[in-house]
Amino acid sequence: MKLRDIGEDRLLGRLLSRLSLGKEVVNGPDDDCAVMETRDHGNLLVLKTDCVVAGVHFLPTANALDVGWKAMMRPLSDFAATSAVPQSALITLIAPEQTNVEWVERLYRGLGRAAKRFKVSIVGGETSRTRGPVAISVSVVGFVESDRCVSRRGGRVGDDLFVTGRLGGAVRQKHLQFIPRIAESRWLTKHFSIHAMMDLSDGLGADLPRLAKASRVGFAIEMEKKFPKLPLTRIGSFSQLSTRNYQLLPSGYVHFQQPA
Amino acid sequence: MKLRDIGEDRLLGRLLSRLSLGKEVVNGPDDDCAVMETRDHGNLLVLKTDCVVAGVHFLPTANALDVGWKAMMRPLSDFAATSAVPQSALITLIAPEQTNVEWVERLYRGLGRAAKRFKVSIVGGETSRTRGPVAISVSVVGFVESDRCVSRRGGRVGDDLFVTGRLGGAVRQKHLQFIPRIAESRWLTKHFSIHAMMDLSDGLGADLPRLAKASRVGFAIEMEKKFPKLPLTRIGSFSQLSTRNYQLLPSGYVHFQQPA
Repeated sequence: MKLRDIGEDRLLGRLLSRLSLGKEVVNGPDDDCAVMETRDHGNLLVLKTDCVVAGVHFLPTANALDVGWKAMMRPLSDFAATSAVPQSALITLIAPEQTNVEWVERLYRGLGRAAKRFKVSIVGGETSRTRGPVAISVSVVGFVESDRCVSRRGGRVGDDLFVTGRLGGAVRQKHLQFIPRIAESRWLTKHFSIHAMMDLSDGLGADLPRLAKASRVGFAIEMEKKFPKLPLTRIGSFSQLSTRNYQLLPSGYVHFQQPA
Repeated sequence: MKLRDIGEDRLLGRLLSRLSLGKEVVNGPDDDCAVMETRDHGNLLVLKTDCVVAGVHFLPTANALDVGWKAMMRPLSDFAATSAVPQSALITLIAPEQTNVEWVERLYRGLGRAAKRFKVSIVGGETSRTRGPVAISVSVVGFVESDRCVSRRGGRVGDDLFVTGRLGGAVRQKHLQFIPRIAESRWLTKHFSIHAMMDLSDGLGADLPRLAKASRVGFAIEMEKKFPKLPLTRIGSFSQLSTRNYQLLPSGYVHFQQPA
């Protein structure tokens, strides 16, 4: 069997389920970020790595500034899903020898801008040659207060699901300039009891079943049921949410229910 | 200018020197590992990422078990250079769609064995397609006591330099089975005052000037001056070293001196 014949979820399920985890692991391979206990009991350690590959995540003709931005924002988006605060990042650049140094410098400017936007220090970098396309892997480490750490697993029957921002449009360049919802996520866990969150990256059709599966619940999408305008209205079991500062726009209305 | 026209050191120097670092950064881009302060004042947070690429770091015909082993051991070897204890690792696998799932499973077995050897938990993984060769990036996070953290920068005039193990032989398969000197490094910083360490990966000819430069010292290699057998003898300013448990075999005799 080849990789093309097996989905990423199934592959990682096969690979990662066999590994043994230490006792310090709070969120493991099934979640957006890895979360570990430390000797500092109020805080958990959060770790995420993600990559972008030319021809897969960006066009070879894309602006290197945008590529750098996206490469940094992808792992940071997983920090948002965990309600974690990113601190430091490491860059691994895999690039063919004929790559222009100027292109790489622009890439790093994009990485640097994105890091600065969330007060993340880029604390190191590695480079490697390749005979293939450019790939950039970014690893980010940070922290989350133990009582504000959110995983995919906490969803409960009866919960409603909300999406920050408007779904769709990723192919129209938006994917190269997106802003992880760290501020929104931190605001949510500061003011409300949030049961579960995840980074929406492969579309609601792919990610909603993942979230429901991790939480061991089913779900129903009620497409006709749009939310009214709701300043300070109760919208679901997540809690009272104000749309004054943040737009929480559900795409249709998703309701967690008993698994079928 | 293309990447082939500029060395990795010069490239990373250009890219990383422009980035601003947070106050919490103890060891930054110039060192083997990134080291950051945390709220847990006795311990520093240590982060490292490294990659292996088919055709560059291993032959496409190499045993996937060995490739996984090497991919994990490379960043762990930088932990040794920092005298740090690794804790958790994340894997990023970039592979073409025609890769055999069985090959990837063997790769993960190699990664898992290597992680287990040093009690490291593999806490997550990502995969991406590529049109190019297989690349595996491994990110490791861990800790080091603040009074045992070693960098490249601490070498002093008059210091002697030692190498654990025998130099050379990497091309004869040894590179796929090497064991990071974490035990040796932890033993050294427990018993002696070590000024500086680094991971020797590109050969003494490339890495010694890097170590000396980071420590702002010069060096002299006295090829004819071999060390005698030295049970519990004083061998240089690093301190009293016993060869009963660990072989510290200098390749020639390296002596730090005033820069020319």
